[in-house]
Parts: sequence; C-alpha cells; structure tokens
Amino acid sequence: MPIMQSGESNFRKQLFQIIFESDTRAGKTFDIVLITLILLSVMVVFVDSVPHLHQRYGEWFLLSEWVFTLIFTFELALRLYCLERPLRYLKSFYGVLDLLAILPTWLSLFLPGAQSLLVLRVLRVLRVFRVLRLMEFVGEGRLLLQALRRSQRKILLFLITVLLIITIFGALIYMIEPPEAGFTSMPRSMYWAIVTLTTVGYGDIAPVTPVGQFISAFMMILGYSILAVPTGVFSAEVIRSIRDERYSDEACPGCGHEGHERDSRYCRLCGTWLDEESEDPNAPEESVEQDKAPGDD
Amino acid sequence: MPIMQSGESNFRKQLFQIIFESDTRAGKTFDIVLITLILLSVMVVFVDSVPHLHQRYGEWFLLSEWVFTLIFTFELALRLYCLERPLRYLKSFYGVLDLLAILPTWLSLFLPGAQSLLVLRVLRVLRVFRVLRLMEFVGEGRLLLQALRRSQRKILLFLITVLLIITIFGALIYMIEPPEAGFTSMPRSMYWAIVTLTTVGYGDIAPVTPVGQFISAFMMILGYSILAVPTGVFSAEVIRSIRDERYSDEACPGCGHEGHERDSRYCRLCGTWLDEESEDPNAPEESVEQDKAPGDD
Amino acid sequence: MPIMQSGESNFRKQLFQIIFESDTRAGKTFDIVLITLILLSVMVVFVDSVPHLHQRYGEWFLLSEWVFTLIFTFELALRLYCLERPLRYLKSFYGVLDLLAILPTWLSLFLPGAQSLLVLRVLRVLRVFRVLRLMEFVGEGRLLLQALRRSQRKILLFLITVLLIITIFGALIYMIEPPEAGFTSMPRSMYWAIVTLTTVGYGDIAPVTPVGQFISAFMMILGYSILAVPTGVFSAEVIRSIRDERYSDEACPGCGHEGHERDSRYCRLCGTWLDEESEDPNAPEESVEQDKAPGDD
Amino acid sequence: MPIMQSGESNFRKQLFQIIFESDTRAGKTFDIVLITLILLSVMVVFVDSVPHLHQRYGEWFLLSEWVFTLIFTFELALRLYCLERPLRYLKSFYGVLDLLAILPTWLSLFLPGAQSLLVLRVLRVLRVFRVLRLMEFVGEGRLLLQALRRSQRKILLFLITVLLIITIFGALIYMIEPPEAGFTSMPRSMYWAIVTLTTVGYGDIAPVTPVGQFISAFMMILGYSILAVPTGVFSAEVIRSIRDERYSDEACPGCGHEGHERDSRYCRLCGTWLDEESEDPNAPEESVEQDKAPGDD
Repeated sequence: MPIMQSGESNFRKQLFQIIFESDTRAGKTFDIVLITLILLSVMVVFVDSVPHLHQRYGEWFLLSEWVFTLIFTFELALRLYCLERPLRYLKSFYGVLDLLAILPTWLSLFLPGAQSLLVLRVLRVLRVFRVLRLMEFVGEGRLLLQALRRSQRKILLFLITVLLIITIFGALIYMIEPPEAGFTSMPRSMYWAIVTLTTVGYGDIAPVTPVGQFISAFMMILGYSILAVPTGVFSAEVIRSIRDERYSDEACPGCGHEGHERDSRYCRLCGTWLDEESEDPNAPEESVEQDKAPGDD
Repeated sequence: MPIMQSGESNFRKQLFQIIFESDTRAGKTFDIVLITLILLSVMVVFVDSVPHLHQRYGEWFLLSEWVFTLIFTFELALRLYCLERPLRYLKSFYGVLDLLAILPTWLSLFLPGAQSLLVLRVLRVLRVFRVLRLMEFVGEGRLLLQALRRSQRKILLFLITVLLIITIFGALIYMIEPPEAGFTSMPRSMYWAIVTLTTVGYGDIAPVTPVGQFISAFMMILGYSILAVPTGVFSAEVIRSIRDERYSDEACPGCGHEGHERDSRYCRLCGTWLDEESEDPNAPEESVEQDKAPGDD
Repeated sequence: MPIMQSGESNFRKQLFQIIFESDTRAGKTFDIVLITLILLSVMVVFVDSVPHLHQRYGEWFLLSEWVFTLIFTFELALRLYCLERPLRYLKSFYGVLDLLAILPTWLSLFLPGAQSLLVLRVLRVLRVFRVLRLMEFVGEGRLLLQALRRSQRKILLFLITVLLIITIFGALIYMIEPPEAGFTSMPRSMYWAIVTLTTVGYGDIAPVTPVGQFISAFMMILGYSILAVPTGVFSAEVIRSIRDERYSDEACPGCGHEGHERDSRYCRLCGTWLDEESEDPNAPEESVEQDKAPGDD
Repeated sequence: MPIMQSGESNFRKQLFQIIFESDTRAGKTFDIVLITLILLSVMVVFVDSVPHLHQRYGEWFLLSEWVFTLIFTFELALRLYCLERPLRYLKSFYGVLDLLAILPTWLSLFLPGAQSLLVLRVLRVLRVFRVLRLMEFVGEGRLLLQALRRSQRKILLFLITVLLIITIFGALIYMIEPPEAGFTSMPRSMYWAIVTLTTVGYGDIAPVTPVGQFISAFMMILGYSILAVPTGVFSAEVIRSIRDERYSDEACPGCGHEGHERDSRYCRLCGTWLDEESEDPNAPEESVEQDKAPGDD
C-alpha cells in the first residue's frame, strides 16, 4: 500500500486519509458511499443486459453509465493526486480494477464495440472486501484464512488427486463411449468427468453404453464420498484455529496441565499461580519470600 | 409475548394458559390438536391443487376449506379475547400468520380471485416449532442455534465471497458464451453460475464454447471444494457448543467469575477452591479447621 | 431372537447353532454360503430384467430362479424346524424377508402375474448385515450407531426444518410459476423444491419466470449452505464417540486432570496412582500404611 | 522397490540413483524433466482427440507422438539396464504403466487400430505422485493416508449401506415406474438410484408417476443427509491424526511404553518421571540428591 510523505501539503494528507484509510469518520463514510455507488453501477450493467429492458430504458442506462464513469474517473483522479507514486498504484490490483471500470466507456467514444467490455465493471465489487474491514469481520476473516493456509497443502494434494481421477476416467470413458453420445473428444470427456465427479450433473452429456454407465455410477459414488476429504481437513483446521485463539500452550508449573484459557491466572486443576510476571496475591507472606530468590526473573 | 393482568377474570386467565402456554395438560392437548388441524388443512390445500383431484372432489375440498376457516377464525377470536393487547398480537409474527390463514377464504366472498391466496395457509406450518417445545427438543434446538449464532459471521463472510464469485463468473461467462446457448442476459448468467457453483446442475442452460466449458469446469471444482468452508466452520462450532455444555453456570465464591469448566477445582481467575463438597488440599492446616464448622454439609 | 429349550434333541440344537449363530466354524460357513446364494439369486433377478438378455436366456433364468426358490424354501423349513416358536420367527423382520424371497415363485404356479414380484427377493440382501458381524465390523458399526443415536434429535430437528422450507418454498413457487413450466400442482412444486434444495437438480422442472429463478437461486444457496448442519452435528458426535471410547471420564485424585486414556495407571501430569482398586507399586512402604486407613474402601 | 547389488559397475549405480532415487540434484532434475515430458505427451493426446485439430495438425501430432514414444522407450531401456531384476520391474505397477505408454505406438506399426489405445498413455500421469515426494508433501500425504486408513472400515460400512439402499430402491422404482420413463431394466433403475442418491441428478431418467416421484424425493433427502456420515467420520479421523502428531515417539525409561502425549510428565503406565531436563517434584528429597550426578545434562 502506498505511503504518504511527511512533508506533504495538508490537503493531500487529509484526502489520503479519507480515501485510503478508514480510521476517521470521513474515511468510513467515503468507503460506504463508494461501495454503494459501485453496487448501483453494477446493477445498471445488470439490468441493461436484459434485452427488453435495454430496448425500453436503454437511453437512461447509457446516461447513468456516463454519470458513474465520470464519478469513478473523478475518484481515480483524486486517488492519483494524493499519492506520491500514482503510477505504482495504477499497476496495483485495485488500481487495475479502477481503470477497468472506466476505460470501456471512454474507449467507446473511439471504438463503438468497446462498450461491451463494460461488464468488467463488475470486478470492482471486489472492493467489498475493503468495506468488510470497517465492520468487525477482521477476526473472522483472519481465522478462516489461517485455517485455509494451514490446510492448503492437504487440499492441494486433494485437488491434484481429483485432477488425476478426472484425467484418467475422462480418457477411459472416451475410449468406451461412442462419439454420438457427446464424447467427441478427450477435453469434452474430461468436462463430463468433472460434471459427474463434482455431483453437478448437467445431463448435457451422459453415457449411453452399460459399461459407460457403470463407470459413471462408480465416479458418482466416488465423488460423493471423497467430498469428505476437503471437508474433514478444513474442519480439523478450523477447530484447531479456534482452540489456538482461546487456549494457551503453556503448561501449569504445578501439575503440568496444558490448555488453560488465555486469561487464566490460576491453574484450574491444582490452583497454582500461572502468571509468572507478577506475584500471587493469595500466597502466604512468608512462603513467597522463601520461594522467591533475589535474582529470579 | 403478551402478559396477563393479574386482576383479570378467571376464565380468561385459564383460556390464556391453555392457548398460549403449554405447561398444563390442557395446554399441551390444545397445541397438539391445533397442529393436527393445521397439517390437515395444509393437506387439503395440497390435494386441491392437483387438477384431476380438484375436478372430482373440488366441492368437498371447498367445504373442508370453509370448516377449517371457521375453526381457525374461532381460534383467533379466542386468542384475541384472552389477551390484554389483542392488536399487538395481530401485528406479531404468529398473529400475521394466523390472519393470512383465514383471510383468503373470507375475502373470496367479495373477491372471486382471492381464493388462490389460500396457499398462504401453508405458512401456518411454522407453528410446528411451537409444538417442538412440547417434546424435548428445546436443548437440541438451543445447541444448534448457539452454534449457528457463533458461526454466523464466518458463514456470512463465506456467503459474501460466494456471491462475489457468482457475480464475477456470471459476468465472465456472459461475455464469452453466445446468447443462443441461453446466456441472454447477465441475471440469467448469474442464475447459471449459482446452478453450477452449488452443484445443482439443472442443465437448462449449459455452456457450449470450449472456453465456457473450461470456466464451467473450474467453477464446479471450486463449488465442490469450498463446500468444506461452511461445513468446517459449523462443525467446529457444534463441537465447541457440545463442549461448552461442560461449563458450569455457578459463580466462583471468591471473585464471582462464571463459566468455569465443570471439572475445575480452583477458580482460574482468583484461585479460590470451587468444590464445596470436599476440602482444598492446598489450604494451610490451621485455616481448614477454622473454616470448617462441625455441621457443615 | 428365539431361544432353544434345553431339553431339546441334540440334532435340532446343533442345527440351531449352525443356522442362527456364528460362533462355530460351521455357523460361519453357513452364513457365507447363504449370503453368496442370496447375492447370486439377486444377480439372476437383475440380469433377467434386461429385455434382450431375458429374450435370449429367459429359460435358464427361470430354471435358476426355481433352483434358488427350492434352496431358500429348504433353508426356511430348516429354520422353522429347529426353533421352538416358528410362527414368531415368521413374523419377525428377517422371517418376513425370507418369505418374500420365495413366495412370488410359488405363487406364480397359481397366479401368472405373481412372478413380477420376484424383485422383492432383493430385500434379502439385508442379510449382509448379519454377515458383517462375522468380520470385525462390530466395533465400527457400534461407534457409528452410537454417533447416529446421539445426533438423531438434532438431525430430526434439521429434517423438520428442511421439510418446512420445502413446503413453504414449494407453495411460493406454485403461486409464482405458470403451470406450463411444469408446476401444475403443489405436490409437483414440492418435488421441484426437494430436487433443488438437495442440489440434485434433475432439470425436468425448472422455473422460467425471473422471480421464480430468483427464488430458485436462493434455495440452491440455502441448500448448499445448510448441508453444513447435519455434517457438523454428526462430525461432532463421531469425534465425541471416538474420544469416549479411548478416554476415561474419571478425574485424577491428585490434580483433577480428566481425560486419561483408559489403560493409564498413573496421572500423566502429576504422577498420582489412578487405579483405586489396587496399590501403587512405586509408593514408599511407610507412607502407604499411613495413608491407608483400615476401613478404606 | 528393486535393490542394487553392491559389486555393480559404478555407472549403473549412478544411473540407478538418478532414475530411481531423488536425493541427489541430478535425481530431482530427472524426475521434473520426466513429469514435464509426460504432461506434454498427454497434452498432445488430448489435443489430437479434438476432431478439427486432428484434421489440421494431425501430422505434427503423429510426429510428436513418435518423439515421445522414442524418448519413453529409451527411458524404459535405461531403467531396465540399471536394475538387477528388470523383469520384476516390468511386472510392477509403474513398470506396467511405462509399457502401456509406449506399446500402442509400436504396435501401430503392425496393427493399424492399435493407435487408439494411445489414450492409455494418460495413466502415466500417476507418476505425479512420485514427484510430489520431491516437494514437501510427504507429511501432508502421510497424515491424509493415516486418516483414510483409520476411517476405511467405517467408510466401507457406509458404502455397503449405500449399495444396499441403491439396490433396494432401484428394485422398488423398477416395480413402480413404467418402462417408457426409462426404467427399462433393473441395472438402469439402479443407475438412476445412484444418480439420485449421490445428488448428481443428470435428468436423463426421471420418475413420472407420483409414487415414483415421492420415492425419488425421499432418496434425495436421504442422500443429502447421509453425506454427513463419511464426512463426519473422516473429519474425526483427521482431527485425531493431527492431534496424534503431539504424541511423542520416545519410550519411557521405566517401562519402555511408547506413545505418550507430548506434554506428559509422568509415564501413564509406570509413573516414571519423563522430562529429563528438569527434576521430579514428587521425588523424595534424598533420592534426588543421590540420582543427580554433578555433571548431569
């Protein structure tokens, strides 16, 4: 994220705080207004894509499209104005999204077909994640991300296995089924294998030979059962993350019991004082003096 | 829930207990008779909606519809009679349901089309949840609700992510697939994206271009895998809720802290001995003798 | 299960052991031969149901059908012969299955159409569960059943909620969608609601109006998400069952730590002797005598 | 895996290390080059299966097919050369895969149709699992396999139950639905039952009678709910496997028992003090002094 130079004019500094940060009241308001505008602009793109609404209200949609484009262009100009290194922002993830949201409309002045790219404006909804920071979703998100990070290698292993199953069964069904049933090439057969293993089951391609149906049935039961793998892995990691957030790893010096809640001060089993950085207020005066050597940490 | 005034006539008091509470035998019987009538009335609506049954037995269905309407009207009248503030009940959730269940039939006297709204009677089945209280489902329900409440923010975060995936992939497929394949507008493309990501897979719209099928395959595997997220989150919270049942409600006599694990012997915050039925082995010899009165339980 | 009288002839006693019990070698062999015959007879029913195989080998299938019927009749006769109360067995679950497996063939001598009921022979495959007892599946099965029993009320509550969702959304879509789209009656609309909520998605009925598709999309995401509920509940109970099988509930008398593995003899945290019925071999001679009062339990 | 004789020529020894092991840099490079070649050769098979690409670039694909065949033949020759018992390797799992990947092309010199078996080359992608060993997927894979091994009997029991449900409901629907709806034979009805229970829902066969649709609806809800069983079982075992990582491998110096939880301080079987880096607080004063030699670590 871009950082403000300290010797900057006060106005740019304030603008930066409003646009890029969300600690201040103005910053929060800016974020909420912006996400509302983004959602509205996406809504217009949506509604405009419906043929009979486009025919009726097409001109109004074009007008609002230009209004949103002007607003977003002004917003992007402000962003670039208050940054030290505007070009670096334009190359960042959100910078590219900002550009993609306004470029199609501007381009349509020169290239008539460019307007069809307006759909890209949809990508700007990803800014929702920035707004979620405002609400108290940070902790929840961090916990989920931690569990995902911990389980990612296991889930990657699972996905590789799934891809191998799909490749091999796709090839198998391609050899068995006739092209008339829709299995005209190996990529199509793999598409079918994915549709079947993930239990989606469009039905646009379905095996017609008994052997093909048998393989198909086997894949369905397989896909149905191995769903347990990513779920099991992720469940285990969420449980671990929740536990880690609540329980300390340190053992009680008295009885060795682990897994005290983080704010515990006494071992809940043997009553030993847990907080080594301060003294037990319950301890008898004399014994403390005896136990506590002068150079004790 | 409405409360009875104490100076009320005895009859209205008793009626209130029967209709609104379920502690007494009469109250339980009332609840069971009522839910049976509701289920029967819904059954009639169901059977009446089948064309060839409607043609044959239509008159009988109309008759029973009026019988149920009269019964439910009488029931609602009783409810309002025994309440202090009947209007407030009519505006409550169950009050609206009670009205919706009888209004269509009465309205049909003046408006011939109103009868088609009789389907709304189905909503009254929600009273089932009141009957479940009679059986011993309270604990189970509370545990599930607690787990839901605890996981709601994480699941909301998951749903927002799912909606973003659907929006973006719906827009993507709308740009790629031709309208002839059924992707005639963005809402329809999003509908397809939902059908695919949730692994429902109707097959009423399916991509026909190779790129569209590739994106489709990617979405299927994604939807298949990320199902692990809500499942993992909810599993973890159910486990925690079950475990929490082992937390005691009793407060520490030393510092008043509540929510000790049931097998705790010392308060984890102030170190006070919690188990009142036995003695603290850590306590200094003399103090035990002082604390322990002869007649102590 | 039927019990043998003690004064019975030795032959009937042995027969009973072979047929109804599986402790002896002969009993195990009997069970395995029987399940093989059952699976073979079901296989014949299967293959016979395929039209072109029936035309070709129909006579052979009829012959083997009679062979299996004669064997199963003889087996049933033996069962009834070695039992004290044969009628009670005939009314039991497995007794009814035994009868259903042979009756259609015998009935076909008098009633030509009765043979089509031969499909009922399939029900006899349920005897597989008796054979599983032979292998070491008992422990696994008991654990799963225990987890199911513990979670059954929660899952019942979940199923009731699912049925309510299906009823209400089925009624809703019935009001919205035109009959031409396939929503001709409320039962059919509920059928569609089940197909959608469970993410099966046949596609034989699909909403055509935008509002109907919106409701449909909502139901898909709902069905996709609430799958987490039974899974989470059952996961939690399996985890609890596995833990219960391994860990003791008794607390250490020294430090109060719970959750020792069942075969532990010393507390793994404070080293206290756990087995109260015998003495600690490590304990110093004198201290044992002091601690142990004469009347100690 | 084949073992090298010690008196072998140095070159064959080195070759063996490069081809069969992956400790050395050369061995790792060999593995990565090989898997890249395999993936490329599979890609060619894929692309070649698309009709219009085959027509256009068919000759180039044939050329590259021969190039890959020659490379893989040379690789197989090297493998056999550096092994003591080459025949045993040819009969091993990976040996058969190696043969299947080159045989179709060589056979096509004599048998024109043999080339269609080239699809079998796809099976070689299973070598991916050998490459995963290079990356640090070993621990993850072992944990997943351990959890699978532990849950396999429970999941087998689940699969047997699923197969019984499919058999019985397939037979039921076969008796109820007319052949015109697609239920022409029992195997087809079972195929439908699998499609329905696993929530795949192709829609190529769907019940048309009300009773059939009711049974169908029941199966969908059943299949939707019992998915919780394998997921719950596997979740529990993954959690146990992750937890087991906290079990120590070190044996108790007192009784030799292995598998203590990592935070144990006393052997749970013989009560011996386990933590060698500190002193046993329970030990009698004098014995500590005796046991503790001055230079003790």
